[in-house]
Amino acid sequence: MKKISLLGATGSIGTQTLDVIKLHPDQFTLEAISIGKNLTLGLDIIHTYIPKVVSVIDKESYEYLQSRVPDNVKVVYGDEGLIEVAANVESQVVVNAVMGSVGLKPTLKAIEAGKTMAIANKETLVTAGHLVMGAAKTHNVHILPVDSEHSAIFQCLNGEDKKALERIILTASGGSFRDRTRSELKDVTVESALNHPNWSMGAKITIDSATMMNKGLEVIEAHWLFDMPYEQIDVVLHRESIIHSLVEFQDTSMIAQIGSPDMRVPIQYALTYPVRLALPLSKRLNLIEVGKLHFEEANLERFRCLQFAYDAGKVGGTMTTVLNAANEEAVQLFLNRQISFLDIEAYIEKALEQHIPIKNPDLDTIVAVDQETRKFVNTLI
Amino acid sequence: MKKISLLGATGSIGTQTLDVIKLHPDQFTLEAISIGKNLTLGLDIIHTYIPKVVSVIDKESYEYLQSRVPDNVKVVYGDEGLIEVAANVESQVVVNAVMGSVGLKPTLKAIEAGKTMAIANKETLVTAGHLVMGAAKTHNVHILPVDSEHSAIFQCLNGEDKKALERIILTASGGSFRDRTRSELKDVTVESALNHPNWSMGAKITIDSATMMNKGLEVIEAHWLFDMPYEQIDVVLHRESIIHSLVEFQDTSMIAQIGSPDMRVPIQYALTYPVRLALPLSKRLNLIEVGKLHFEEANLERFRCLQFAYDAGKVGGTMTTVLNAANEEAVQLFLNRQISFLDIEAYIEKALEQHIPIKNPDLDTIVAVDQETRKFVNTLI
Repeated sequence: MKKISLLGATGSIGTQTLDVIKLHPDQFTLEAISIGKNLTLGLDIIHTYIPKVVSVIDKESYEYLQSRVPDNVKVVYGDEGLIEVAANVESQVVVNAVMGSVGLKPTLKAIEAGKTMAIANKETLVTAGHLVMGAAKTHNVHILPVDSEHSAIFQCLNGEDKKALERIILTASGGSFRDRTRSELKDVTVESALNHPNWSMGAKITIDSATMMNKGLEVIEAHWLFDMPYEQIDVVLHRESIIHSLVEFQDTSMIAQIGSPDMRVPIQYALTYPVRLALPLSKRLNLIEVGKLHFEEANLERFRCLQFAYDAGKVGGTMTTVLNAANEEAVQLFLNRQISFLDIEAYIEKALEQHIPIKNPDLDTIVAVDQETRKFVNTLI
Repeated sequence: MKKISLLGATGSIGTQTLDVIKLHPDQFTLEAISIGKNLTLGLDIIHTYIPKVVSVIDKESYEYLQSRVPDNVKVVYGDEGLIEVAANVESQVVVNAVMGSVGLKPTLKAIEAGKTMAIANKETLVTAGHLVMGAAKTHNVHILPVDSEHSAIFQCLNGEDKKALERIILTASGGSFRDRTRSELKDVTVESALNHPNWSMGAKITIDSATMMNKGLEVIEAHWLFDMPYEQIDVVLHRESIIHSLVEFQDTSMIAQIGSPDMRVPIQYALTYPVRLALPLSKRLNLIEVGKLHFEEANLERFRCLQFAYDAGKVGGTMTTVLNAANEEAVQLFLNRQISFLDIEAYIEKALEQHIPIKNPDLDTIVAVDQETRKFVNTLI
């Protein structure tokens, strides 16, 4: 029986992780969770799974929940609460499904505590990949990707010698606006940006898909997870989201992971690795029904955020922290209808331009640069 | 340094195996070969690689070659010669790239001698899969597939637990006549049948592709190699031959092996397994250049030979021996312009109908049924 800690239980990946846990009551128990602003959903989850520890965002939520949970459920809050759920309970696997760079500290603490990490929160690796992968090496823990693309690559590398790996090819659906030119992006609305053609996901990642920053973050994530130089990570547009990503070996042989777009597949794989279990909820892919798969170039002039990510990744140090923090803030401003869609990339570009990168930053430096960048972005409005 | 025995050195797979061996002089030496009717090419190979033993078809060829090979090359011939090359030399890996069921006996002898078998000769498994796989188990030797589809499946299963395998999906280009209806097949010529759209292969296998018997033989081969029931082996038409085959696991995740159609990739993989080496000859696949991949149903009424193969496979015993022998004879009659293209399947159907299958046949029974079937087919002209 694997005991699971789930950071971000009320989000999109969080609830799908709960689906998987519920499917296999003989395999998994939910040991501890953190929940976000949706306390109603949080209470539902608590009453269904009775986790030992629940962390909420702030003291107010803590007080609200305290009187509403069963006696044997401990409620904690804030950064300390998140760390308790990640590192101080008896779970073997910690799923990091929170949004944004808030997932970084609990991830590092969980690794130090020897927990296997299932990472759905790509910002953690983008902002501090060297710290996370370094800690994982030191403490000899597995970092298992939950993102569908990285899970795909991870599955493709199963049983293979990493030395023979020549290239990683991330597929990109292209997001809500893939068929629009740059000039057609000027006046797009929040609603149209949130309308992703293939995947049902949270708001932030859906906007990141529309700007292609999501793929940019994934390039950086792949760099860290698979220890690959940026020159050997490619992106190809693949509108059907059926091939979730590919690897190419020295002998020109390519291995791809394929399936219906359903996040429960990579979530379950991270929970069951190296074993695979049945997943009756998920739809078997019928290639004949699919009929055609398309591949197109991911044009870096059309998708400027992808270019920013490659550039920031190659510079390294705090540059990817800035990329991520500026993106998080700019997307929030867009979702708040304070800036336009194309302002997102303009703001990110300005944040990157004004930053003097620091090499091998420690956690305090990363947190400071993250904060400064967020402030800077807000001065641009 | 791996010492290689190569059965069928002058054929299409044979010469491509030699290409791979030549590319890696630090990895492989050619210990022994068998050659076919093309003695001129055989002599070229002998003078280039100086194998210790060379087997030829008959005494006449033996006498011709005897005076023309270097002193340190031993020439042998006939069935005994083939067995000497397969089992009685110092090689670790035996590549079976001969055509037809003549590859069976030397394969069994090589397995008994503890050699790793790289099998390009699918007829060996079709006609006597239970003997070959049984012997491999008894003598604890690896059977490595060279066929692009089976190599693909083998690569996809790398590092995976066989128990989680749900389905094997063989891709089929559809061969020379994939876009023709059955009525358009009546008067097709040998020349048009030999014009395969994607692969450059020998005459017999190219005709087998046009009748789809090739895919039928591969279904039976997959059944034996991967110990899968026929109900869990599917065929899908995929005209580009870019996805070489796929597997599906219990969790709905599919893994595919992808690449340019180049037999040197699976040949080299069988020689280097479990390692991968660079293959500078082969073209890297560019998915953006490919642009589209198509998938269509492999209609069993249109492609009757595929239906015959599933039916014969499910009956088992000597039924697949008959399928294979009848097909070999009928294809030869077509290539000799003695029968029409559609006669191939008509003759095979008649051979299957008249046969009373024998369960768990031994080698003598298989050889006898094979001979009887060939005779029967020739009475139909």
